[in-house]
Amino acid sequence: MTSPIGLHRVLEPSGVLPQAARRLDNSPEIGADEVRIAVERLNLDAASFRQLSTKHAGDGAAVRGEVLEIIGARGKMQNPVTGSGGMLIGTVEAVGPESPLGLKVGDRVATLVSLTLTPLSISDGLKHWDGGSEQVPCEGHAILFARSIAAVLPADLDPELALAVMDVCGAPALTARVVGRYDNPTVAVIGGAGKSGSLSLAAAKAAGASRTVGVVPVERERVMLADAALADVVALADARNPVALAEAVEAALGGRAADVTVVCVDVPGCEHGAILSTADGGTVIFFSMATSFAAAALGAEGLAADVTMLVGNGYVPGHAAYALDLLRQVPAVRAMFESRLHHEASRATSGTAD
Amino acid sequence: MTSPIGLHRVLEPSGVLPQAARRLDNSPEIGADEVRIAVERLNLDAASFRQLSTKHAGDGAAVRGEVLEIIGARGKMQNPVTGSGGMLIGTVEAVGPESPLGLKVGDRVATLVSLTLTPLSISDGLKHWDGGSEQVPCEGHAILFARSIAAVLPADLDPELALAVMDVCGAPALTARVVGRYDNPTVAVIGGAGKSGSLSLAAAKAAGASRTVGVVPVERERVMLADAALADVVALADARNPVALAEAVEAALGGRAADVTVVCVDVPGCEHGAILSTADGGTVIFFSMATSFAAAALGAEGLAADVTMLVGNGYVPGHAAYALDLLRQVPAVRAMFESRLHHEASRATSGTAD
Repeated sequence: MTSPIGLHRVLEPSGVLPQAARRLDNSPEIGADEVRIAVERLNLDAASFRQLSTKHAGDGAAVRGEVLEIIGARGKMQNPVTGSGGMLIGTVEAVGPESPLGLKVGDRVATLVSLTLTPLSISDGLKHWDGGSEQVPCEGHAILFARSIAAVLPADLDPELALAVMDVCGAPALTARVVGRYDNPTVAVIGGAGKSGSLSLAAAKAAGASRTVGVVPVERERVMLADAALADVVALADARNPVALAEAVEAALGGRAADVTVVCVDVPGCEHGAILSTADGGTVIFFSMATSFAAAALGAEGLAADVTMLVGNGYVPGHAAYALDLLRQVPAVRAMFESRLHHEASRATSGTAD
Repeated sequence: MTSPIGLHRVLEPSGVLPQAARRLDNSPEIGADEVRIAVERLNLDAASFRQLSTKHAGDGAAVRGEVLEIIGARGKMQNPVTGSGGMLIGTVEAVGPESPLGLKVGDRVATLVSLTLTPLSISDGLKHWDGGSEQVPCEGHAILFARSIAAVLPADLDPELALAVMDVCGAPALTARVVGRYDNPTVAVIGGAGKSGSLSLAAAKAAGASRTVGVVPVERERVMLADAALADVVALADARNPVALAEAVEAALGGRAADVTVVCVDVPGCEHGAILSTADGGTVIFFSMATSFAAAALGAEGLAADVTMLVGNGYVPGHAAYALDLLRQVPAVRAMFESRLHHEASRATSGTAD
């Protein structure tokens, strides 16, 4: 009898869930409620890829070598420094008779659970990847449990586009839920020009935000987000500087802090600025994996800030469908995603740094 | 002009809030809106004290030496490993003419902001402390900013008792707020026999919980909490074992996961168990400074758990008065706090280990 949450695949230490495991059993034989996927592409978590790329000073071969080493040692792709993984795309290869996921052999799917808990084996040495982008073409297999979540790729969207959206689909869904609890709230999205940020801005508007501000760190992103008109105001500020960030948000929102602040930047040190940018009675949603729990908890206490702080849960029922619908309905979101994918593709082939 | 949140006291790095600073200016001269306290006792954060005590294998002199070194180097008491601090008790020594805190010279107060952001200087070499308990008698001075929070010690309670309550007063206040949002919810408090745990159990009942379970790791605490009758059920489980914890909670709550789960244990690795113990639509409140943001976020996603996860904000308006009232109104809470203080005091004088 296999566990719906994959406990039977944990090799060490015993008693923990697959995400906390040092090593998973990635053997291809499936249990009665499991599904095996023939993998065609990994999408590494942005924080993980950045850490690896920085560590190896942009040396793609070294990044590739370390990713191979991690997967070989752990039976899954989980960056030991950032603790994060990513997701994958592939084709259903085998379905156990008791799998509740509703998938059938030949379905092209994306996994919506993290790579950090997905048994994974690579068989091609990542030879088609140059180590220079988050998108990793590859061959191998992965295992889904009964309670894993996977979505069949929509027929009307390019698979890479759908994958990029699904990778961050928890952010717009949770943003919409929180914004919907307030009456005409103001919303600040820190990192508004990124993938989760642009979707969260669109979700905030759709859920009833009266005024939104997208905060970006550099002029290039300011121009891009302003052109897209996804936020009522675009502000330029370093999110790691609490005072500068709070001043930028308040200036954009007519002199008052935000009712809801959404943190979508994957750099450390943004907790205090986010708290300081949020009005009493407001909510901060932390989606960045670089968030420090202690910095958030102690920061709010130290500022005597009566704000609700949410750990950004990547799962909200219906999150993938909601995010894909936003992409279809808001042309500016789609344009930003397509431009980002195009940019990554050309960067990968030209070899230039960003 | 001094900053209400103490920016003028940050020596390095520049641009951060006092809590994130490596070093604060702890000089005794006060600005127009500051207050200086003559310190008589520090109360170290439990996670911080445990880390120091474990690191030095219970050698009190070595613990004392490192605490002195930290305060000397940083101008505040912030454990560099856990990131946490604690609070202090003392007497108001000087009040700037523009301080909004309502304190006057001679008031005996406890600070309700963390030591991690409070400028602090020690003048007696901690010679009256043996390094064997969280309570540190000392001489020196500390600085409060305009937005710092301090409470005058109540006349009807022993100061050490009041300090121990105020140290964790954010937990019962936030627990009560969250429990009050549900109709007759079930509540699980992980670490129910501790300071924040016992107060949170009492707060959950006061706020309308239909059934509560206190989870404890050892038989001694099980007996203590059962005798106190603060929870409807007391369960014995290792919170770091997700499956064991969830099974214990469900067994205690009639076969269903909890609507609200409150994590009050200061050991790492409790995130997955807390999530697995919580029903869909429920809320997990993390008060432990040992909480890993990534483990919580990725764990919920990996379990496809539709739970709201809150970073336990140590500040809720009125939290100190609320917690002190719980202590006055619930004799079992008071008895547990007094027994704990007595236990610590006798341990400190007898020198025996626990």
